[in-house]
Amino acid sequence: MKKNALLLLGCCLCISSYAQFKDPRPVKRPPNIIVFLVDDMGWEDSSVPFWYQVTATNKRFHTPHMERLAREGMKFTNAYATPVCTPSRVSMLTGMNAAHHGVTNWTSPRKDVSSDVPDETLHPASWNTNGYSPVRGIAHTVYATPLPALLREAGYYTIHAGKAHWGAMGTPGANPYNMGFLVNIAGHAAGHPQSYLSEENYGNMSGKATAQAVPDLEEYYGTGTFLTEALTREAIKTLDEPIKRKQPFYLYLAHYAVHTPLQADRKYYQRYLNEGLDSTAAKYAAMIEGMDQSLGTVMDYLRTRQIDGNTIILFMSDNGGLSLAPPREGQLHTQNAPLRAGKGSVYEGGIREPMLVKWPGVTAAGSTATQPVIIEDFFPAILEMAGIQLYNAVQSVDGNSFVPILRNPAYTDSSRALVWHYPNKWIPEGGPGINYKSALRQGRWKVVYDLRTGAAELYDLQTDIGEQRNLAAQEPQRTTALVRLLSQRLQAWKAPMPVLKATGQPLPWPGENRP
Amino acid sequence: MKKNALLLLGCCLCISSYAQFKDPRPVKRPPNIIVFLVDDMGWEDSSVPFWYQVTATNKRFHTPHMERLAREGMKFTNAYATPVCTPSRVSMLTGMNAAHHGVTNWTSPRKDVSSDVPDETLHPASWNTNGYSPVRGIAHTVYATPLPALLREAGYYTIHAGKAHWGAMGTPGANPYNMGFLVNIAGHAAGHPQSYLSEENYGNMSGKATAQAVPDLEEYYGTGTFLTEALTREAIKTLDEPIKRKQPFYLYLAHYAVHTPLQADRKYYQRYLNEGLDSTAAKYAAMIEGMDQSLGTVMDYLRTRQIDGNTIILFMSDNGGLSLAPPREGQLHTQNAPLRAGKGSVYEGGIREPMLVKWPGVTAAGSTATQPVIIEDFFPAILEMAGIQLYNAVQSVDGNSFVPILRNPAYTDSSRALVWHYPNKWIPEGGPGINYKSALRQGRWKVVYDLRTGAAELYDLQTDIGEQRNLAAQEPQRTTALVRLLSQRLQAWKAPMPVLKATGQPLPWPGENRP
Repeated sequence: MKKNALLLLGCCLCISSYAQFKDPRPVKRPPNIIVFLVDDMGWEDSSVPFWYQVTATNKRFHTPHMERLAREGMKFTNAYATPVCTPSRVSMLTGMNAAHHGVTNWTSPRKDVSSDVPDETLHPASWNTNGYSPVRGIAHTVYATPLPALLREAGYYTIHAGKAHWGAMGTPGANPYNMGFLVNIAGHAAGHPQSYLSEENYGNMSGKATAQAVPDLEEYYGTGTFLTEALTREAIKTLDEPIKRKQPFYLYLAHYAVHTPLQADRKYYQRYLNEGLDSTAAKYAAMIEGMDQSLGTVMDYLRTRQIDGNTIILFMSDNGGLSLAPPREGQLHTQNAPLRAGKGSVYEGGIREPMLVKWPGVTAAGSTATQPVIIEDFFPAILEMAGIQLYNAVQSVDGNSFVPILRNPAYTDSSRALVWHYPNKWIPEGGPGINYKSALRQGRWKVVYDLRTGAAELYDLQTDIGEQRNLAAQEPQRTTALVRLLSQRLQAWKAPMPVLKATGQPLPWPGENRP
Repeated sequence: MKKNALLLLGCCLCISSYAQFKDPRPVKRPPNIIVFLVDDMGWEDSSVPFWYQVTATNKRFHTPHMERLAREGMKFTNAYATPVCTPSRVSMLTGMNAAHHGVTNWTSPRKDVSSDVPDETLHPASWNTNGYSPVRGIAHTVYATPLPALLREAGYYTIHAGKAHWGAMGTPGANPYNMGFLVNIAGHAAGHPQSYLSEENYGNMSGKATAQAVPDLEEYYGTGTFLTEALTREAIKTLDEPIKRKQPFYLYLAHYAVHTPLQADRKYYQRYLNEGLDSTAAKYAAMIEGMDQSLGTVMDYLRTRQIDGNTIILFMSDNGGLSLAPPREGQLHTQNAPLRAGKGSVYEGGIREPMLVKWPGVTAAGSTATQPVIIEDFFPAILEMAGIQLYNAVQSVDGNSFVPILRNPAYTDSSRALVWHYPNKWIPEGGPGINYKSALRQGRWKVVYDLRTGAAELYDLQTDIGEQRNLAAQEPQRTTALVRLLSQRLQAWKAPMPVLKATGQPLPWPGENRP
């Protein structure tokens, strides 16, 4: 009943919204929205400091266009995603927490293949191994209404460029066209490019191509154009059409950079070598700078086309910076210092993200927000930005719109709890905060929970952002309360849990008695 | 007729050889033979200098066991392979030159897929894209009698460990068991490992495995054992059996190292970082040292088992050191200095190899041979070492046994011509001596021929090992004569040639008039 009512309302709204776009008064036109999503970029991988001070890591990078975006918009210093990519991407697409949508690990490009590493004592959790599906009834997927479809219904010209990685080949979720995108450039089932190099045809090499060969970019083969730039140029080309039509657009520009393979973007690489960086570090920094240049190119284009005043830019990454699998240069788990660990971990290094939002006329230039936000918040926030107040989505949305924060950077809500749930075995050897971990943050406090052992750790992020001092023994009541809250959330979402081989039963919920 | 007669002789020989192994007098026992083949190792990638002086590159590497093998045996300073791996490996297996066996490029693990990069004006040559086949009648393969089958027939216990890469999946050539090996460890259709790391199960990761995932090494998963060491340990285990049986063995230990992906072998990596090497260079040097340690482990094992006095070791690489595709650290094409270019090129950097042979009682300790030899020479040389004088092979063998050189390092034959033929497009952008090139060396002179343009270059390797001074204009008669000799060889072998799209005709043979 309620859903049908919403559907009707949604349709009415669609019509009225669409009519509104034809209104000649520019002030009423819904804003263009650009999500600029980077892959595997760490919180410190920028010359913009997202902490209270500039770190040695910040100094390695040159990201002048991120600096410009930060000057013109709002910086979020407590923004989060999930430890790996697909869960974050599905959360942004659906507004659901990973523990709720059940795509808790990255998806293989191949259907019905779990990416979980086998374990001696645990069977994998029954997570959605085929990822997201816009169609009901596809095995091992979460069915939900995708954000771009809602935007398109409301009159947006929707464009996908870059990495999709929402579902396995042979399922509807593999194809961005099934999610409400009018245009798709280079997005498919794969989670990384086989190559960033036009000299290698982005992986489309005879005899060498894999499921990760990047589609659609034939005209750049052999031209010396790094993948990041090719995607940017193609994305900008597609903007001409909605601008001509005076139709608002939603551009989801999801770079493959800076995921592995780390390859030298020759435009920027030499500078970092000259600055004394190791070749691996120089490749990484050059990929960051190429990504930043893409942001600059997009911003320049908006200005040239005189639409920068009505275009929102949201900058985000999908998980923490790479530390291992494969290891980067230097000591493991130091790449995101002062944060602990990196991609794959529920410690801050694995989940804390560089986030920037510029909404002309709304965000104060150069402002900073400290309120914690998380990747599923993008779904309701973007709908709110688009003026879509009522919409018909089959899922129940977990995210909170951060538009109130955009309007008031001093906004705080210390009662809000953010949840991470990674009931999977990511890598064989494990590591800090890696494999079968959950976590919850409320205000300054964070609990990290080991699903396998039942051990809980407590950290005060306000004084210990590096999660070095486990306060669980000193603060047993607080720890127990946070574990209980985590447990309640997971149970309410029917979160997937690893299964003990010995008993065939799922591991107990956090805080429950263990057999 | 002749073949049948040979077959009969071959069988008689088998029987008599086998009987001979039971002779208690050790002096009559055929020697054990170990081919220690490294992948993608350059001529300079060792602390053993293969030039007349120690270079800066030599100084980067620590290969004490190669030094030991050089002290105990013979060093070849003019040894050659082909520019890429499969052609070399098929040449060693069959005794045929690449222009003759027609597997002129590396083979895709997938059947009927050419690894040639598409070209605007040329169709690919009709080379044997499915590689080698021990069975007649398999499309796009060369059918020939493989070396290990002949050794096995003659009574050898034949062991394959490491990289095979002779033929595509779904053809008999993919499987070392089809080539006369009694044991196969980790060899299949792939040309490189997906991972060297046990932490990544050598690539056998759920959802991530590709055709390059290394088979057979389950017991090393997660143990911290680098692939090179795992292969060594498995290879040595298999030697127990022939030693117990007092049966001579042929061990083909073909390391995946030092092919990409360049990954840090933690046992050795830090040392090179400490010595100031860049992380990529340090990974490479550590992989070289791991390979060298494998050689040492094998040599120590032979000594412990007291069979070092009757075991021949042949050390070789399959093509020049990696320079690009993907680029290594530093300037392109400098990695093999003083040699020009690297893997994929017919310049010396792409084809000149570090070669060592120790045959106790035959090779003089610490001796050096300067006579040019080439990869197909291993086939007749190894048969000669095994005492197999008559054998029944369906192919006509192009290689010359280098046993006379082993007996006399001063052996010279300046009339012998070595031929390289690479009528393929290896990489899109080309490079020095790369794509559609052939070459011939006779004595000190080398001609490099561009199949597409018909241009010939002449170099005097005795005074110009770096191929910097093209003497073709100064020495037109010598150039013409060498091009003619190259052309005769290619025509006699019916070498595959690229086809001009405009005419549908193969490119003219070297030196012929061009349309």
